[in-house]
Parts: sequence; structure tokens; C-alpha cells
Amino acid sequence: MAICEILSVGTELLLGDILDTNAQFLSRELAARGISVLRRTTVGDNAGRLRAALQTALDAGDIVLITGGLGPTADDLTRDVACELLGFPLQTDPEIAAGLRAFFASRGMDMPQENLRQAQIPVGGTVFPNPNGTAPGIGLKKDGKCVILLPGPPREMRPMFYESAVPFLKEYTDGVIVSHTVRTMGIGESAMAHTVADLLERANPTVAPYAKTGEALLRVTARAQDSAAAEALCAPVLAEIRRRLGEKVYGLDLNGVEEAVVALLKAQGKTIATAESCTAGLISKRITDVPGASNVFQFGAVTYSNEYKEKILGVRRETLERFGAVSEATAREMAAGIRRLTGADLGLSVTGIAGPGSDGTDKPVGLCYIALDTADAQLCEELNTGRSDRAFNRFYNASHALDLARRYLERRGCT
Amino acid sequence: MAICEILSVGTELLLGDILDTNAQFLSRELAARGISVLRRTTVGDNAGRLRAALQTALDAGDIVLITGGLGPTADDLTRDVACELLGFPLQTDPEIAAGLRAFFASRGMDMPQENLRQAQIPVGGTVFPNPNGTAPGIGLKKDGKCVILLPGPPREMRPMFYESAVPFLKEYTDGVIVSHTVRTMGIGESAMAHTVADLLERANPTVAPYAKTGEALLRVTARAQDSAAAEALCAPVLAEIRRRLGEKVYGLDLNGVEEAVVALLKAQGKTIATAESCTAGLISKRITDVPGASNVFQFGAVTYSNEYKEKILGVRRETLERFGAVSEATAREMAAGIRRLTGADLGLSVTGIAGPGSDGTDKPVGLCYIALDTADAQLCEELNTGRSDRAFNRFYNASHALDLARRYLERRGCT
Repeated sequence: MAICEILSVGTELLLGDILDTNAQFLSRELAARGISVLRRTTVGDNAGRLRAALQTALDAGDIVLITGGLGPTADDLTRDVACELLGFPLQTDPEIAAGLRAFFASRGMDMPQENLRQAQIPVGGTVFPNPNGTAPGIGLKKDGKCVILLPGPPREMRPMFYESAVPFLKEYTDGVIVSHTVRTMGIGESAMAHTVADLLERANPTVAPYAKTGEALLRVTARAQDSAAAEALCAPVLAEIRRRLGEKVYGLDLNGVEEAVVALLKAQGKTIATAESCTAGLISKRITDVPGASNVFQFGAVTYSNEYKEKILGVRRETLERFGAVSEATAREMAAGIRRLTGADLGLSVTGIAGPGSDGTDKPVGLCYIALDTADAQLCEELNTGRSDRAFNRFYNASHALDLARRYLERRGCT
Repeated sequence: MAICEILSVGTELLLGDILDTNAQFLSRELAARGISVLRRTTVGDNAGRLRAALQTALDAGDIVLITGGLGPTADDLTRDVACELLGFPLQTDPEIAAGLRAFFASRGMDMPQENLRQAQIPVGGTVFPNPNGTAPGIGLKKDGKCVILLPGPPREMRPMFYESAVPFLKEYTDGVIVSHTVRTMGIGESAMAHTVADLLERANPTVAPYAKTGEALLRVTARAQDSAAAEALCAPVLAEIRRRLGEKVYGLDLNGVEEAVVALLKAQGKTIATAESCTAGLISKRITDVPGASNVFQFGAVTYSNEYKEKILGVRRETLERFGAVSEATAREMAAGIRRLTGADLGLSVTGIAGPGSDGTDKPVGLCYIALDTADAQLCEELNTGRSDRAFNRFYNASHALDLARRYLERRGCT
């Protein structure tokens, strides 16, 4: 089994300015491909210490995977240090240089001279294209050792890992791994784990619980010689999980409940309109995170003040005065109001106290009402996170509002 | 200045099952106390590799801070390995053993025999109490070197760091670190770095450029005996950066341009209303991420379809037909429309093609128009990221729209 060391490069890591999520990502992905990571090392933007760490890693294993230090500035040293240590001379690639110039030109800017460093590639090395940034990655193989250089920003690093590094590592990887994530809403991580406790003991596929901003999820991972065999191992376990968790499961391998909602709306030819108070656009933003959402979403109202709840949505003043903005009655009138205004099939509303401070009433921070208005039903639920974390509360409330729509659509789709 | 290495111990880290937030926490806390972290290393629950990593760290610096591997099970090796390497014999502490038994008894459980290992303490070492768990921490000092062992779970590690490790490190802590971040908009990282190239060579304060989702920022970090002296070192450099980057700088130590906008609106007693198409609520969400935004923001319209651009904002049909939804004319009418509808002081609009797909016209993905309408000015700018990354484009467009408002408010505030 191949042995790999991960090197993270960047003084900002050693100062604690940023969290090294790359190391976790790469550890998991490599383990899933049968490559053992026995050590991870982080060094700053310092040529001597980077060289020493790379030499130590090369002595200990077969593969060294380095992230960071490929940028255009003088403190980005990874390319120079690695290519020098392994004896790959650098030369400027005219095509990459032209691409960089075009990139800047398309933004109406002159390319700073420093950026030309990113066009330097090792003679005899492999260049990994970077469709998400300006720094290409690099793969080097020599004397049975393999060194891979990836950019530091995760949104550039992750796709490059899948598209270029994995194929480059082919000779070291062993079989395939298939992993599926069951997403749930409305059940805590420990209650979920309890429900599937016996499955968590399995070896292949493994089943592991995770928590993620107000959601619990289960990852099912199988290893086999090919992906069909791995899928066949996963399938019965996934079916058993769905059977046990029932309606709590909103989807498989989704990025969030908004994807389930948009898919259901599309499948049923329905539209949704939103009326948001405390989430203030987060729900409409999440719906439209899904490409093609314009088929199912046309309008959302962010009615942050009472005045606009009345003016735009037609919430009655007496409702606001008697029950307050954060109340079931207001949530219901908001949902009905946005559906009346737009004629959408589903009107979805949220009103709550996101915190950190109180809203001046004696209602607790973390309280929220979500409502759904349709031609055949009006649903309202009370949420209370008990927390004063504004960002958490807003995300949690948005998720549960979307899930209210998801459950309605699923039940309706079944009849 | 004392030099420290951080060692994270745990096979679960190398498998990527958990994210190492301890390393970031300790890096930041140590830097703030004048202790330089020059390297971080992660090893699994393996005695040989842990011993080698600890020896290497002791050779390189003054302090080694180890997290993890203090639990009760056989694979928790940190205590044994560290005490053996430094020559501190272990013996069972009867008081800690009694405390462990009481801990289990209070939960109605018998203590597993393995847990007695957590009562083993080094003769001549310092024991750090753990009010949040069963594993005490340990401090060892010998031959001018200092080794600190802390438990892995962050909720046990963090309080123990503050309460026990910091006092134990007193003789090594040296003055304080002060760090400020200059946030900019509308300039790339390399162009920014070029503008301040000579400042990047400084030693105290250091100046370092970073990139962050469509923004470039500069971190200025000074070290001195006290925070007033460190601030005095930063001040002239911060002033010089502001002078050179001018209006590109939107603030110091902010989390985003929305914080600058809300602060300016509050200071000037003004309100803003938003009309969003491609960003679909992201701008109103970001404005209301700032606690207390209700003073300056009451209503936002997410007009995702042309129908609602007409119906709610009063964009003229002929404008949409002649120039299209993604056009300067539409953006201007959207901004004017939302201001007319709400009477807000600033009407801010966005309309663009976020991608990944085209909008069915021949306009490029990544094109966007942002507009601001006020009583004394109407501004409109064209953006084009040249990218098809939907999430990036939406965030970038929202940031630049907010920055258009920021620049207007700053100019107005100056007159």
C-alpha cells in the first residue's frame, strides 16, 4: 500500500488565520483510494523549512502532496523549491503565459509582471490545468517518488485533485471507493445514530454519522474492485437506512434541502414564492443556488420591517399588533400574502428572532415560525433553536422552511 | 523569541474523519503571545512515529504542544511516549484515581480498568486539571525544553489551554502580537501586492497579501512589548497602505463590505432597499447578516423573472425587450424602481448571468450590471468575471454592488 505525506504550506496557516480544511479533504480522499497518509506537516512560506519538510517526506514515503504556495507573489515558493529539489528545471510556458494575459485582459486589467511566475512549468513534469484560478498545479515523478503540487484555495484545489491528481496517482491507488451521503432533516445526530446503531458497526460498506449546521447525515462508503461492485454493496444498506429514517431523509448526495425542493417543484410543474423576515433573502438565495431554478421561482419578498409585511404581503396590522411579528398568525398571513401576490403554487414564509439580541419583546431569541400556503393546505411550524447564534439560526430556519415545502411536495407527489 | 511546534496526534485525523481545529486555535493563541509556530505535524496513534515526531520537534525548538492521545484506551499513547522520551517516570496518583471513580459513579457506571491509565502522572511534572473530561493534561520542563500535553476534544482542550498551559508557558511568552486586516475591493491580489511591493519586505510590522472570494486583502502584523507599542508600529504602515490603495480600501478588520455599508448608512442616518435578480437575496441576506441592520434595511425585492421586474419595480417592458434583462438600462430602472417603491435613500440593484449556463441570449456568462439610485445620483457599473462558476459570480456581484453603495456613501460623507 502506497504511503503519502501531506504538506500544507502557508504562514497564514501557522498564524492560525485560516483553518486547514485541505488536509482533511485530502486525507479522506486518499484513504478512500487505498493510500495511507502517515504524517501531515505544515510549514510557512520559508524556502529552507519547506525544502527540509519535503526532503523528510520524500525519505519516508512514496507520494508527497503539497497544497499552497503556488500564487503569483514572491512568498509563493512551493513551485521553485519542489522543482529544484527534484531536479526539474523551470521554463516559461508561452501558452500558459498567453492564457494569463487573456485572463487579465478579459477583466480590463494589465497583467502584473509577477503573475508570469505562474506560467513557469517544470521540463519533464506534468501541468494540471486550473479552470478556477490562475495557478496551474504540477505533478512530478522521479526515482519511484511522486510529488504533486496543488493550489491552496479549496475551490481551486478540490476540482484539480479530482480531475488531475487522481489520474496522475492511478498507479498507486487500489480498487475504487464509492461513497454516498444520506441527508436528513428534523432529527439530531445522536438520535439518528441510535436508530441505525447496528449499521455503524459494519466494515464494508462503513456507515458513519456526521453533523452539519443543523442537519445530521450518514455517509455510506464501500470499497471494491470496480464501482459496480461497490454500488452493489451500498444499495441494501442505503435502502435499510431510508426504511428506518423514513420522511426524515430528504435526499441522497444532495448539497442541501433546496436541491430536493427545486427537483420536486420541477417534477410536479409547480412554482414557489418566498416571504422572508429573519432569513432576509437566504431562502430565495438558496433556491436560486440551484441552476435552472428560474423554472420554479420568480419572486421573493424580503419584508424585514412590519411596514412591508403589511404593505407588500397584506399582513393585517391587528395581527401584528396583537400577536407580534414573530408569531404563527403573522407567518400564516405572510405565506398566504405572497401566494396571493404572485399566484405561485406554494407560498413560503419565515419570521423569527435570529439574535444575537432580543427583538424587544419577551419572546426568546431563537424562536421562529415557518409557514406554507397552498391551494389545498396551510401548514405552520414553530422552531426554537435555543441559541443566540445569528448565522446558525438563519441557516437553520431557512433549512426547515425549505423542508416544510419538501415534505408537502413529497406527500402530494405520492397521492 | 520562543519557537514552538504543534503536534496533533490521532489516526482519525490522518483518515480525514475529523477536522483539526485545535491546530488553528493553538497557532493563533501562541502567535498572539509572541511564540512562533514554525511547523505543525500530525501523526497517528503509533508510538514509533509519535516518538520520532516529538524528538524532531524538540531538536528544532523550545516548546512542543501536543494534542490528543490522552484517552483511556490502548491506542492513546501520548502520555507514555512523551514521559519516557523526556525521562519522567509515571506513577498512579491516588487522588486522580479516586476522582475518576467518583466521575463514573456519579453517572451510575463502573469505571473500566483502562481508565486508570488517566490517573498516571509524571513524577516531577505538572498536572493540568480537566474540569470538562477525564483526561488531565501534563506539563513537562527539562533542559530548557518545555512539552505540554493537552486532550484532543476542543471543549476540553481550549479551557485547559487558557487555565493551565498559558500560565505554564509564562517564561516563554514575549510581548504581544497585533494584527490588522485591510480589506479591499476592485483590485486583484497581484496588482495590490505590486502597489505595496516594498511594504511586503518589512519585518515589523510584516505585511502579507491574501486573496479571498473575489477580494484581495493585506494583513499587517506587529510584535512589541505591549499592545500600544504594537499598534504604534502598525499605524504608519496602515496609513501608507490606505494612501496608496485609496478608495479600493473599504475597511479595516471587517468581515465583509456589508459591514462597511451598514456602518456608513447608520452613521449618515440613511436607508437602503435592494432589487436583486441574479443574486436573488444574497445582498439582502448579507446586509442583514450585520446585527442591527433593521435600522437601515426594511425591504428587498427578489425579482428573478422579467414579469416581476415589471410588476414590482416598474421596469418598462420596452426596456426589457430592447436591451434585455441583463443590461445597463434594466439595472438602472430596477434601482430607481425599488427606491420609488420604498422611499429608501439608496436603491441598489443587480442583474446578471450567474451561470453555469447562458441565459439564452448571446451575452456572456459572468456578465452583470449593478446600479445605485439616490436623490442626487444614479450610478451603474458593468462587471464581467469571465467565469461560469455560479456561486462565485453571485458572491462577486453582490460584493461589488455593496461596494458601489459603499463608495457612494463614503464620497457623500466626505463632502
